[in-house]
Amino acid sequence: MTAAHNTAHAAIGKLIADWAAAARAFDIDRIMASYAPDIVAFDAIGKLRFDGVQAYREHWLACAAMCPGPMVFEVHDLAIQAGGDIGFAHYLIRCGVIGEDGKENAGYMRATVCCRQTNGRWLIAHEHYSVPFDPANSQALLGLEP
Amino acid sequence: MTAAHNTAHAAIGKLIADWAAAARAFDIDRIMASYAPDIVAFDAIGKLRFDGVQAYREHWLACAAMCPGPMVFEVHDLAIQAGGDIGFAHYLIRCGVIGEDGKENAGYMRATVCCRQTNGRWLIAHEHYSVPFDPANSQALLGLEP
Repeated sequence: MTAAHNTAHAAIGKLIADWAAAARAFDIDRIMASYAPDIVAFDAIGKLRFDGVQAYREHWLACAAMCPGPMVFEVHDLAIQAGGDIGFAHYLIRCGVIGEDGKENAGYMRATVCCRQTNGRWLIAHEHYSVPFDPANSQALLGLEP
Repeated sequence: MTAAHNTAHAAIGKLIADWAAAARAFDIDRIMASYAPDIVAFDAIGKLRFDGVQAYREHWLACAAMCPGPMVFEVHDLAIQAGGDIGFAHYLIRCGVIGEDGKENAGYMRATVCCRQTNGRWLIAHEHYSVPFDPANSQALLGLEP
């Protein structure tokens, strides 16, 4: 592991921590600040893909409208690999909503985040969130635990 | 784009083409030859994650038992970014089975492939396959078209 690798690891770790804090606060401008303009996103719900920050911002706002109230976004088992100006990370994310009674309605998803450094700044160029499904009945497996 | 970037792009493109040819033939040894020993895989069905080639090989064999007969694995809209010894790619994959009547039963999934070069050889260190689900009824959206 070289010093350059360590610097890239730390930068990608900070990028993901900033993104998660912004997501918990549902601060749409801070969330979008993590993304490259040409991001291609594969989200867990809705369409196959979202191309570019504008389309992805609209999807995030639609998700926010679906999930009013405080959000749960917990990053687990984060692993990062980086080299040069490209890196990737994967983790499990416990996410959901906190109800008016204070109870969390949350489950685990998988997250892959692919990052690019441009002009000294690391941004998310591609991300992929999902839950697996059960091939017997095509139901998303929302209750899986790591 | 430097010559090193071009070389990495070409190597990752070949890795994915070799993997897809092996998957179509369901040649388990050739499929597994694309993966790093410490691969972490998030597949579209079953568990949240598979750690290491042995666990992932067992999952591939279980999938093969579920899908007898010739397979469809078509790579669409492939995009690759690479720098140094790390790269990633994303694409849509039309996959499924060909029935005894010759009819294809296939649909589109999303694929993210994260690659690492070690000792001059590019391998898949992480991959993520999924279909999105409909939050209204938790059904996997198996009929989406790009």
